[in-house]
Amino acid sequence: MNNLFEEKTIRTEEIFKGKVIQVQVDDVELPDGKMGKREIVKHPGAVAIIPITNEGKIVMVEQYRKPLNRSIVEIPAGKLEPGEEPETTARRELEEETGYVCKKITPLISFYTSPGFANELLHVFLAEGLKKKENAKAADEDEFVRLEELSLEEAASYLKEQRIMDVKTAYAVQYLQLKEARK
Amino acid sequence: MNNLFEEKTIRTEEIFKGKVIQVQVDDVELPDGKMGKREIVKHPGAVAIIPITNEGKIVMVEQYRKPLNRSIVEIPAGKLEPGEEPETTARRELEEETGYVCKKITPLISFYTSPGFANELLHVFLAEGLKKKENAKAADEDEFVRLEELSLEEAASYLKEQRIMDVKTAYAVQYLQLKEARK
Repeated sequence: MNNLFEEKTIRTEEIFKGKVIQVQVDDVELPDGKMGKREIVKHPGAVAIIPITNEGKIVMVEQYRKPLNRSIVEIPAGKLEPGEEPETTARRELEEETGYVCKKITPLISFYTSPGFANELLHVFLAEGLKKKENAKAADEDEFVRLEELSLEEAASYLKEQRIMDVKTAYAVQYLQLKEARK
Repeated sequence: MNNLFEEKTIRTEEIFKGKVIQVQVDDVELPDGKMGKREIVKHPGAVAIIPITNEGKIVMVEQYRKPLNRSIVEIPAGKLEPGEEPETTARRELEEETGYVCKKITPLISFYTSPGFANELLHVFLAEGLKKKENAKAADEDEFVRLEELSLEEAASYLKEQRIMDVKTAYAVQYLQLKEARK
């Protein structure tokens, strides 16, 4: 743990305890001794999956995102259940959102998505050796998604035209472009 | 606006109105007519800057992030003020966080950072032609940052070793790697 410029917590006010997020306001002592307030969202963490079909296509999902009041195109993703290993979540979400199971799953990177106000840590996996499951589990009760299988060229143009407007998906497209460039 | 699988808002409960974020819980009608709840964080939006020095180094800042209870290495970033143009925010944050002003600033991409629970839209800029300002504005009252100027190779190894654990910074490093690969 790196504690450069540590902000000491003087008091924590619990604001909201939801089913997904918790919100709190911390009174902190800054490095210069002054006081400040930090509005903080606690999140259980999540996974995202870059699923590559045997034909080399990337599987994406279009889904409605209430915070944006619109639907957007993203790689499959989902929240961690308490105590769940990220790889387990990744396999489950891949199957639930796309109907695919995979032979090989590789952890690529973990990063914070909005460190200024939230502690969400996102774990990204590459999923290969995809196979449609015959009796794929039903999608999550409140999950409605439309599948899209894109070539890397198509995904890159989606990104350029801002039809992809999601940071993890932008990361995924770049990751695959770099892999291709290094071949 | 794409409204595939739209979720109609039946009722909005305001939970918290902070200085940075607002939190609400929406009762929504799902596409199948069932009801659901959505916990939503409203955020003013933000910018991030990829500053490249005349020697080809990337300027990053290490800062304490209270939501994580640790400090992390990131490209400079900051929240939009109400009604502010993202480019204005980008120039201001670059100067405040790094002491650099830039000759050329180019918008690269805009993306949502956590569309599952927040509406934060992040605008990314490339800043070139950097010059240290003689009388650089004082850093934000509660901003304490340590500058780091990294070669692309160094930044790439930071990413690989997970010393960079921030999604916008991961995007920035890959952006520069792709640019380099295409030269």
